[in-house]
Amino acid sequence: MKEVTGSCGHISDMTSREFREATARVIDWITRYFENPEEFPVLSQIQPGDIKAALPGEPPTDGRDFEAILNDFENHLVKGVTHWNHPCFFAYFPCGASGAGIIGELLSATLGLNGMIWRTSPVVTELEDISLDYLRQMLGLASDFSGVIVDTASTSSLCALAAARESLREYNIREKGMAGRDDLPPLTLYMSQEAHSSIEKDAIVLGVGQENVRKIPVDSEYRMIPVELERNILADLGNGFRPFSVVATIGTTSSTAVDPVEVIADICAERGLWLHIDAAYAGSAAILPEKRSLFAGVNRADSLVVNPHKWLFTQLDCSALYCRKPDLLKSAFSLVPEYLTSSEQDSAKNLMDYGFQLGRRFRALKLWMVINYFGSSGLQELLRRHIDLAGRLASWIEESDRFEIMAPVNFSTVCFRLNPRTHKPDTHSPPESQEAYLNELNENLLNELNTTGRVFLSHTKLDGRYTLRCAIGNVRTEEKHVRELWNLLQEQADRLTES
Amino acid sequence: MKEVTGSCGHISDMTSREFREATARVIDWITRYFENPEEFPVLSQIQPGDIKAALPGEPPTDGRDFEAILNDFENHLVKGVTHWNHPCFFAYFPCGASGAGIIGELLSATLGLNGMIWRTSPVVTELEDISLDYLRQMLGLASDFSGVIVDTASTSSLCALAAARESLREYNIREKGMAGRDDLPPLTLYMSQEAHSSIEKDAIVLGVGQENVRKIPVDSEYRMIPVELERNILADLGNGFRPFSVVATIGTTSSTAVDPVEVIADICAERGLWLHIDAAYAGSAAILPEKRSLFAGVNRADSLVVNPHKWLFTQLDCSALYCRKPDLLKSAFSLVPEYLTSSEQDSAKNLMDYGFQLGRRFRALKLWMVINYFGSSGLQELLRRHIDLAGRLASWIEESDRFEIMAPVNFSTVCFRLNPRTHKPDTHSPPESQEAYLNELNENLLNELNTTGRVFLSHTKLDGRYTLRCAIGNVRTEEKHVRELWNLLQEQADRLTES
Repeated sequence: MKEVTGSCGHISDMTSREFREATARVIDWITRYFENPEEFPVLSQIQPGDIKAALPGEPPTDGRDFEAILNDFENHLVKGVTHWNHPCFFAYFPCGASGAGIIGELLSATLGLNGMIWRTSPVVTELEDISLDYLRQMLGLASDFSGVIVDTASTSSLCALAAARESLREYNIREKGMAGRDDLPPLTLYMSQEAHSSIEKDAIVLGVGQENVRKIPVDSEYRMIPVELERNILADLGNGFRPFSVVATIGTTSSTAVDPVEVIADICAERGLWLHIDAAYAGSAAILPEKRSLFAGVNRADSLVVNPHKWLFTQLDCSALYCRKPDLLKSAFSLVPEYLTSSEQDSAKNLMDYGFQLGRRFRALKLWMVINYFGSSGLQELLRRHIDLAGRLASWIEESDRFEIMAPVNFSTVCFRLNPRTHKPDTHSPPESQEAYLNELNENLLNELNTTGRVFLSHTKLDGRYTLRCAIGNVRTEEKHVRELWNLLQEQADRLTES
Repeated sequence: MKEVTGSCGHISDMTSREFREATARVIDWITRYFENPEEFPVLSQIQPGDIKAALPGEPPTDGRDFEAILNDFENHLVKGVTHWNHPCFFAYFPCGASGAGIIGELLSATLGLNGMIWRTSPVVTELEDISLDYLRQMLGLASDFSGVIVDTASTSSLCALAAARESLREYNIREKGMAGRDDLPPLTLYMSQEAHSSIEKDAIVLGVGQENVRKIPVDSEYRMIPVELERNILADLGNGFRPFSVVATIGTTSSTAVDPVEVIADICAERGLWLHIDAAYAGSAAILPEKRSLFAGVNRADSLVVNPHKWLFTQLDCSALYCRKPDLLKSAFSLVPEYLTSSEQDSAKNLMDYGFQLGRRFRALKLWMVINYFGSSGLQELLRRHIDLAGRLASWIEESDRFEIMAPVNFSTVCFRLNPRTHKPDTHSPPESQEAYLNELNENLLNELNTTGRVFLSHTKLDGRYTLRCAIGNVRTEEKHVRELWNLLQEQADRLTES
């Protein structure tokens, strides 16, 4: 950086010296942070409005020294952080940062590239192809799947479902739209009751409408029931609807259930429906040969989303959308104004053609660095460790006389609840009030756990029953952390049930 | 980071020592890079496939030393970079990285936060509110505009237009969708012929359809003609269409034209249409009092997008969507499954409610750091410098006898072309073939310029005429760089016209 000093505040970018000093301090902070992330409460302890109260209400007129800005960061902002890097962050689907991912993002932020078309930085397009092909090979996906990286699974699924809608060529929805047409029946989309809310949101955006999203019932293990799917499709066909896509989930958000993809694929093939697979979290487990059976049928899907930012040590945001019909994605979205034409238009891939977002960050760099740093075998070992830790927690729960497992543990997520009456059924109270009591008890248990600041879990409801989820996905999580959770669970259970 | 060494490759994250060594090397590289970005060709000189050919076709089984990964980066990947940081990058709307933005992204990547709801990291939600309120004040937007940060203007406009669609409450599109309904007329959307392609893409996604996007003619300065807008709306109303939104642009992509927002706002108010303003690039100029007149009427808009990643030294991605009816955004999108409920659900803002993307990176940190580092006066000075440089280039062009200005220079972008006959009209050839000749000549000129690797410009067509665009927006661009462009233009013009 140039050694130019501004006359009043900063009217040029940092000098080399400023940048070196600021980054030296930041790298120190980061290194210390990762040496002991446990020194922070996992769940931020602040109240809404606290940060606003600590910072000025107006932007500074004159530029500030970076030193002062970093002081604000350390003194005020860090308090508002819920630490996704804490090894006892067990909520949602955790993906802490890895060193390789951080450095990938640092270099990406430095270059500030926008890969909207090939020439605006060929490396963005090409490294996206290369890293997604690496990942495809690791996952065992067929070679006719090609991928793009977007920000979130919400976007990946939105693009996939837009391509599914585009596959109804006879209706020319891209050109004519959906409203005010005599020739276009209402479109229906199918997913299980346990599918992610983002699919329903995507249906809203696309103009499909919430009431045309069919939530197919699930079995006792929270998997879509294929005969119910078929029954719904036939009923809709009989009633003048136009089914267009089925979303199957491998690893649902609540309980990591796996829909029966093979049977669903048969139904889709028979009825000509687009099969999209949401494997945002669990997809990463396909890199393990011993888990591959849970992915049977994936190569029959039209599209599939997997998020390396959920369980592959590549921090937010990095969602991979694989599609076997990229031409349909392109015909759903490609629209090239004069100012985006280029001489490589037909000879190279232009990322903007495969989605609605024109701007594209250089996200592939972190993924490529993570894959290179750990190697496929290192990534396998890390996932095996998480699956093993989840198995241990599950076995402690199974052996206990007051906790119970609420769903099969397919990957690294354990669904459970406190149920002091597991082994001594209370015949005096009817089942409904027992369930209400257990729901309240477990909600209290979760709140107590999370306010300790030592662990952070989230919850769901399975079949109406309040359920705690322990999801393990952080590169720093070891057995002692899961044991810490187990000890805390005992303590809190004692406290909550002794009265 | 923990000092744990794996037995075979990397099965744990980097040690502190590895991280320090790797970042030391990276910071060195970055510092040297910014000391002389001109040592690289602006436009990458590689051919499609070159990077793929240079890297292994399969992921490594064993993890690699980070040293080796960085060697690949320096030796193979950098060649594929088109340098958005090069001070002679004048293409599209350039936004190079600034030191403050880089450090903001470094810390954001380190924390790896996901601000989907308030508690998943309060600082993400709160600092987004704070920085967008700073920016709002600087832009002179009314206090009833509240904002969210998303990835791109494409997404901002998609969300705004979804809220516009949701404002048609009587049709309940969220619930019932758009297809197969007797009660829903085709929806029509209005923008000028010069509006950005992303608006049309958004209309495709939303099921509005391309043929229901009315491209209103523009005047000689490429501004929407309000009487044409009104005429189109009335015709549509007469033909059974349902107009729902007008998109006005302040700073079009081709020529940075400014639509007459005040008059358009009158029309929208009279007809009850949602007014969305696309000020993705030029919006930043509203921080200058002397440019504020170009923004007359913005406070009557329902929504407005401005991208700090286009002209506010905050690298991709950071798009600010301001909305005066956030409740409509929320009712278009909010959908809270059990696993995302929280005790702060009603007392705090939850970002996921304001869009379709669940995952939210901590993008506010870089924006907050940039605003704090430069201060509002520093940012004003930088923008003034760019506007001044654009003015100088424009004056050189105006004084020349073979180049001509093709559109008013409203901000920091100059549209021009080589026209050797400007001062000696060729009466022997008809105007059409003259224009064809000039189009070819200017396309050649652009290619020659860009292949030098010393500057990078992009082009557009204005009224059918091939036009070169010089957009100035990089923190490192100084007069000597614009002069370098001007000298190159002379050289190439000599070469192309001497034969």
